Amino acid sequence: SRSLNLAVIPGDGIGREVVAQGLKVLSAVLPQDVKLETREYDLGAKRWHRTGETLPEAELDSLRRHDAILLGAIGDPSVPAGVLERGLLLKLRFAFDHYVNLRPSKLFPNTATPLAGRPEIDFVVVREGTEGPYTGNGGSLRTGTPAEVATEVSVNTAYGVERVVRDAFARADARPRKKLTLVHKNNVLVHAGHMWKRIFDRVAEEYPAVTTDYLHVDAATIFFVTQPERFDVIVTDNLFGDILTDLAAAVTGGIGLAASGNINPTGEFPSMFEPVHGSAPDIAGTGKADPTATVLSVALLLRHLGHEAEAVRVEEAVAADLADRGEPGSDAGASAAAGPRTTDGIGDALAARVAG
Amino acid sequence: SRSLNLAVIPGDGIGREVVAQGLKVLSAVLPQDVKLETREYDLGAKRWHRTGETLPEAELDSLRRHDAILLGAIGDPSVPAGVLERGLLLKLRFAFDHYVNLRPSKLFPNTATPLAGRPEIDFVVVREGTEGPYTGNGGSLRTGTPAEVATEVSVNTAYGVERVVRDAFARADARPRKKLTLVHKNNVLVHAGHMWKRIFDRVAEEYPAVTTDYLHVDAATIFFVTQPERFDVIVTDNLFGDILTDLAAAVTGGIGLAASGNINPTGEFPSMFEPVHGSAPDIAGTGKADPTATVLSVALLLRHLGHEAEAVRVEEAVAADLADRGEPGSDAGASAAAGPRTTDGIGDALAARVAG
Ligand SMILES: CC(C)[C@H](C(=O)O)[C@@H](O)C(=O)O
Ligand SMILES: CC(C)[C@H](C(=O)O)[C@@H](O)C(=O)O
Repeated sequence: SRSLNLAVIPGDGIGREVVAQGLKVLSAVLPQDVKLETREYDLGAKRWHRTGETLPEAELDSLRRHDAILLGAIGDPSVPAGVLERGLLLKLRFAFDHYVNLRPSKLFPNTATPLAGRPEIDFVVVREGTEGPYTGNGGSLRTGTPAEVATEVSVNTAYGVERVVRDAFARADARPRKKLTLVHKNNVLVHAGHMWKRIFDRVAEEYPAVTTDYLHVDAATIFFVTQPERFDVIVTDNLFGDILTDLAAAVTGGIGLAASGNINPTGEFPSMFEPVHGSAPDIAGTGKADPTATVLSVALLLRHLGHEAEAVRVEEAVAADLADRGEPGSDAGASAAAGPRTTDGIGDALAARVAG
Repeated sequence: SRSLNLAVIPGDGIGREVVAQGLKVLSAVLPQDVKLETREYDLGAKRWHRTGETLPEAELDSLRRHDAILLGAIGDPSVPAGVLERGLLLKLRFAFDHYVNLRPSKLFPNTATPLAGRPEIDFVVVREGTEGPYTGNGGSLRTGTPAEVATEVSVNTAYGVERVVRDAFARADARPRKKLTLVHKNNVLVHAGHMWKRIFDRVAEEYPAVTTDYLHVDAATIFFVTQPERFDVIVTDNLFGDILTDLAAAVTGGIGLAASGNINPTGEFPSMFEPVHGSAPDIAGTGKADPTATVLSVALLLRHLGHEAEAVRVEEAVAADLADRGEPGSDAGASAAAGPRTTDGIGDALAARVAG
């Protein structure tokens, strides 16, 4: 019999609540012969306050021995900005070489979008996850004085860019529209931008069926709101990907629905799946958190581990559930008519759908 | 009698057409006793193709002797990315220490927005203009080989950050809502981000009437489309400002309406005013370019040079003109009913309004 040995990092705020629903759906959808084993890791703001630790080596070693990691949310206003991001979240992405940060954006029927005219949106951003301005390179000199100088160094390697660009081409090639857009700012960030463009153009020759396109990041944000239907797959740098995927989430129903996978495609390290939203301490414990983003992250996890049919079932369950909720503000939809559902209620509904 | 000694850089594509309208409106609005002198500078893609020059020292020296610069648009697909941006546009911003890159965003009545519900949008982005990832620091090693490394260094100084933060506080203090939002990414770019935040918090103490706020750049893009009415003044780094202001333009009627000022507040160097849009070679010469962004940039120029009443007249003329054009897609509005107007037609209408 097969097994799925999953590390779970509930984290802070609503993290624990949404992860519980993700696990509920995962258990419900997994084939009978797959034995799900989970081990929880106590990491995040509380741990840091208690012990000063963000991610000790021993736990990093232990995490490495799992098939995958499911993470809820990390962060709390009581922790200085950067401590948990650099010391935990990004440390995991770097230590486990999560060079493909996968973020699909789809506007499901009946979900809210701030865009008039409800354009068709169905694209995926392949965000580089281990380089760019996220490496922590840089520093500050004469900190806190009027003569302070602070630098941030974006580090980009042909090695790192080529592997993520290849991954994006393969993904574009496997989709019906076969279109790949490179987003950068190569008219200003000429060193990194030209390298990205050169590598992109070279790999493109190996994928004649894929239509390619280049956009500056500023122009890309315009198209995200005026013509999002033009995108199929987007490949971009770590920071641009961070910005674009939050905007993408905003136009496709909000970060309550945005899933992500921090993927190590070689399988050398476990990949990590997490909703794009944060820990939202203001609504923690109220039952208002929408676990859908976590459940969609579970679908990415299933797909990554080869359970394609199960991934599709989870995604179809989410689509059906959203359709039933009805357009917010309208009174269409059975459950919308019955009032807003709780975190747990949505988890139960999704688990029932995937099992049924 | 007073004079206004203006340098004009029409540039490429639609640049010449829109600048002509800007000058038309400027002449019409200026008080009789102000003598307008203009000198045109032949800079941009054609010049580069002909001579290989982007901005020779002699011309930079000559530009310096004007009261202000009006720029149309620079850039053409025939020129490699970065040549004119770094060699001309950014060279001007850096040489003339344009540390306040001012970009107002206002959703005028009857103009198109991709946002459902037409939120009230009226904010201004104070984008730092002389530091950050725009300094050109960085480079590439083993260029074009599989072992290439390319870096981009964001350089930030307390000197540079404090002066632009001060400018933004003063602007926020002078507006009715008195609200200033700092946008950065201080949970990842901890060196620069923490310095920005420290300086912002310190200057805030001198402006007790100004309400302050901090947002990560990714979160800011979400609010730009879900809650743009929450913003009054935003201060941010050069690259984040670039991205955010294109998005802001997109939600307030498109870059055809977005004005900008590259301002040297000390007056040591001439400030430069330009529409945010590019040279749009595809519509150059067709009369389809909307000169409104250039005309609104002229309003910023007038205000910067102390002609406040004239600046207001130009802005009111634009608002009235847009109201008359009617909502695109509807048939309200006199001129909309008469078909779309030309670049020249819009310029004439605006000139007539400010003169009248
Ligand atoms: C929390 C932060 C470090 C993170 C990032 O910037 O990558 C988040 O915004 C995300 O997009 O996953
Ligand atoms: C053309 C380019 C150098 C410029 C920038 O990035 O600043 C443009 O996008 C702008 O916003 O004025």
